[in-house]
Formats: sequence, C-alpha cells, structure tokens
Amino acid sequence: MSLLIAGTVAFDAIETPFGKTDKIIGGAATYISLAASYFSRDTKIVSAVGEDFPKEYIQLLNNHGVNTEGLEIKPGEKSFFWSGKYSIDMNYRETLVTELNVFENFKPVIPDSYQGTEFLMLGNLAPAIQISVIEQLYNTPGLIALDTMNFWIDNTPSDLKKAISMIDILTINDAEARQLSGEYSLPRAAKKIMSMGPEYLIIKKGENGALLFSGDKMFFAPALPLEDVFDPTGAGDSFAGGFMGYLAKTQEVNFENMKNAIIAGSAMASFCVGKFGTENLVNLNISDIYARIKEFVELVKFEDKSID
Amino acid sequence: MSLLIAGTVAFDAIETPFGKTDKIIGGAATYISLAASYFSRDTKIVSAVGEDFPKEYIQLLNNHGVNTEGLEIKPGEKSFFWSGKYSIDMNYRETLVTELNVFENFKPVIPDSYQGTEFLMLGNLAPAIQISVIEQLYNTPGLIALDTMNFWIDNTPSDLKKAISMIDILTINDAEARQLSGEYSLPRAAKKIMSMGPEYLIIKKGENGALLFSGDKMFFAPALPLEDVFDPTGAGDSFAGGFMGYLAKTQEVNFENMKNAIIAGSAMASFCVGKFGTENLVNLNISDIYARIKEFVELVKFEDKSID
Repeated sequence: MSLLIAGTVAFDAIETPFGKTDKIIGGAATYISLAASYFSRDTKIVSAVGEDFPKEYIQLLNNHGVNTEGLEIKPGEKSFFWSGKYSIDMNYRETLVTELNVFENFKPVIPDSYQGTEFLMLGNLAPAIQISVIEQLYNTPGLIALDTMNFWIDNTPSDLKKAISMIDILTINDAEARQLSGEYSLPRAAKKIMSMGPEYLIIKKGENGALLFSGDKMFFAPALPLEDVFDPTGAGDSFAGGFMGYLAKTQEVNFENMKNAIIAGSAMASFCVGKFGTENLVNLNISDIYARIKEFVELVKFEDKSID
Repeated sequence: MSLLIAGTVAFDAIETPFGKTDKIIGGAATYISLAASYFSRDTKIVSAVGEDFPKEYIQLLNNHGVNTEGLEIKPGEKSFFWSGKYSIDMNYRETLVTELNVFENFKPVIPDSYQGTEFLMLGNLAPAIQISVIEQLYNTPGLIALDTMNFWIDNTPSDLKKAISMIDILTINDAEARQLSGEYSLPRAAKKIMSMGPEYLIIKKGENGALLFSGDKMFFAPALPLEDVFDPTGAGDSFAGGFMGYLAKTQEVNFENMKNAIIAGSAMASFCVGKFGTENLVNLNISDIYARIKEFVELVKFEDKSID
C-alpha cells in the first residue's frame, strides 16, 4: 500500500562519546522513509529544505525508492539544522543548536500525485502542520499515525488534542504519555489517551522496549539489549518507519499484525543506533533485517510450562 | 527440592502516596520465603529477630510451610527496623530509619536439620554473612543464588567479589550491574559479571522487566504494566522467591526452565506491589498465580510472521 510521510528533512550535527559529525542528513521524514523503504515500495514524503541542501542527499532518498515530489526546495532559504550532544551513557542529550530556517513558516503542500495515499505517517512537527496535511487529503487515509513530543504538549496543547482526535495510532514515549494523560500508571494513561481519539497507542520506552495498547488489549515488545550503541539519533523515527512500512507491506491493520510491525520497527531502530546518523539505515539488506527480527523473536520466546 | 533462604526478617514502616503503615513484618527472607512457599513445599530460613518480634509473625511464616528453626530469637535485643517513604511516582524511595539492631553482629547459625539443602538463596545481606552461610553447609547446594545491592558494591567490594565467585546465579538491578562491571551496555556488563563466577545472571529492571543471561544466551522477561502500584517494598525479594521456588518445584536447573522461573518470579512481584507490605503475598491461591502467569505469557506472545 502507499505510505505518505510528513516530517522534517534536515541537517544534523551529532556528538556522542564515540565521536562527532559535521552536518549530515537527518530529520524525522528522512529516518522514517529510509526505515520504511525496506518494507514498502510506495513511499513518499512531504517536507521542505533550503537551497543549501545537497542534491546527493535527495538522491539518497530516491535511491531507496522514496518519492520526493513533495519535498519543496525553497530558493534563498536554509535547511532546518539541529545539533546535539549525548551524555556519556547516551541517556541524556543536550540540544546545542536548533535553527528552524525553512520550517519557520512551513506550509506543507501535498502534490496531486500523492492524493489517494492509503497510509499516512505524521512525523514530529507542529500539530497545526500535521492537521494541515490530513485536511489536504481528499480521502482520509485508511490508517493515520502521528508522532509528537513534550514540546507540543507544553506549547500547543489544544492543537495537539485536535490532531490526536483525527488519527488512528499515536506513538509517544513513556514520560510524554504520563504528561499528556496526567496518569502515572501506563495502562491508565493509555486508556485516557485512547479516549482522546486513537484506536491504537504505542508507548515507546527506549532501551526498555515498547507497549502497544488497543481497547483492553496490551502487548509488550522488547528492545534488543545491544553491545554497542553509537548514536541514538533517529531511533524513534526508524521505529515508526519500520512499523508503518511493515503494515503497508502486509496490508493488515489489526492488533495481531501490529505486534509484528512493532518488532519490525524495533529491529530498524536497533540498526539505526549502531552507527552515526543514517549510516546503518542506508546499507541494510532485507536478510539482515529478518535475521534481526529473529533475534527479537528468540529474546522473548519460551515454552509456557504452567504447572500445578 | 529443599530451599534454604538466608536474609533479614524485620519490621518495616512504609509510607507511599496511598497511605502509611505502622511497624509491619518485612525483610528479605520474609518476602522470599512467602513467595517461594506457593511453589516449594520444603522451605526454611536462617535469620534473627529480637525478643520484640511478635509470635504471630513467625506463625504466619509457619502457616505458609516455612521452617523457622533457623530463625534465632535473641533475648534482650531488638529486631531490625527499616522505614522508608516513596515518591509520588514510586520511582524513588527515601530511607527514613535503618536500625540494624539484631543484625549489627549477626552470625548465622545453620541448624543441623538444614544440612543437605539442595538450593540456597542468599538474600541481600553483608557479603561476609552470605559467605558464612555457604561455608557452614557441609555439601555445596546444587544451586546457589545471591542478591545484593549498591551498598555492598560501595563498601565491601572484595567480600562481595569473593561471595560472587562462590555462587551460580546473581540477581542485581541494572544500575548495580553497570556499577559492578563498569560497563554501560548490559550485554557487556553481563559478560564481565559472569566472568567473576556465576553461570547465570539476572538483571532486574523494575517496571521494565528482567534480563536473564548465561554464556551467549539472553532472555527478556517483561514486567506486567499495572494499573495500581500500591507499595513497591519487597518486589525484588518476591521475584527472587518466586524464581527459586519455581526451580525447586520443577527441579530443572537450565536456561530454558529459568525462563519460566523468571515469569513465576515476575508474577509474584506483581502481586506483592498491589497492597502494603506482605498483605497480598499471604492471601494468594495457586490458581490466581497461574492466571497471572498466563497474563505474562499473553503479554509477549505473537505469531512470528516473517515476510520477504
């Protein structure tokens, strides 16, 4: 099925205990579309860059089958730029620079050729922009997923609530789920958030895995404990891309299939963090990915030997 | 199989956002033995209390089939007393009072009738005491598990390393595993710790589950996300008790069976935190426990539908 991704395409400069990068390709739509590209053959993005953005970076997306017709190149403007530095244990990151640039007044324009998309993934953006993408589509996609962060919970709560009321799946981390719902218990938080609109909720817990909720059902997906985490940038977006790409490929939107989709997303995130930026994500082959998915399957597999 | 448990039997006074208790029965050996009692029919403890310790509390242990011949009642002395207060989100606890009392100079004495025990669980105690228990047993138990905490890593590191070299399974939380090994990555930490002696390592991650390591094998056990966590006191000890009780009952010491044992331990911990102190642990029946174990099984179960 066709998958439309809205989000940033940007420059990142990253510093971790293992080294630092110059300006490299980053942004939510970049990570989401690259991760999705291994599963979905019809992936397109809506985003914007400045005229400083290298053609090779756009070519990189195209090489992965990502349609960039909706990636506006704005003459005379500069691309979004984020720079961050991770703590020694990688569990904290300090933002050094955020230059919105072309995203300061970003108004997404959906090309006609994108109409009729079946799945929509709204990467982390101002909720008003996320809403604008939904409203520009003549037919509501069969599945709309949205990712957000604490900044929008703090600063545009009513826009965010409106956006959340229009979607099917929300992805959010555990601290944000608690903040958004005012509930510490994650099952309670999940119930409150689902009452705001989405039928499905994914609570991301980083190195502690992810929880999927829908109605009274709950699924726990582990994260693979890794020997080497090199750069956590983009892990959540790679997760979302693998998740949506898997659903788009398998074309089954239900709780059972979402379990597999979460494992696929977790596998993509585990690759992402193994090198700087998108370096690992652009050099995978599908057999690596299925081997990694098998590792996840093995990690939680046991024979239930209930005794009495 | 027979299971010997060494650890504190004590008074606790607990304050959580949901209320507070007077002095109630607590201590590692209490929680471990109560949790184990639902699986193992031959459970005995070695510990000490002062003459202030109510007979009813000892009777409570006996009612659960726990042999207390090795529970010394010291005339003229007072029982160990711990008091703590949990933060609003239960993720942090402040120790208000620690009175070692009878544990100030505790020298465990193993009754003759305890000789020949097949399994030994050393609850959190000074490593020198844990070593003394092992050394008093004429025959080395077939399985020795040890629990410890950051206090002993900080204060008696060489005793702790000696104790760890004598055991088969170490249980420890993630922060302590990182501290003990000097490695942030848990798989790397696990390798270093196993090289200190134990064939198996369980890294407890609280509300994020637990990891079991042995050689190159790794298993991830989830924690059940709970709507109501009332009092986390004793959760780690209930986990250890369920784990060792399950192994003692099923009499199979290998990686595969330890997966089930970890789920059993996780189930006991999930009951423990549902009420104050031991209140939930003393009122279970085995069908509740197997129903809870089934919830864990369902939580992670999915059909692996690898695609290509």
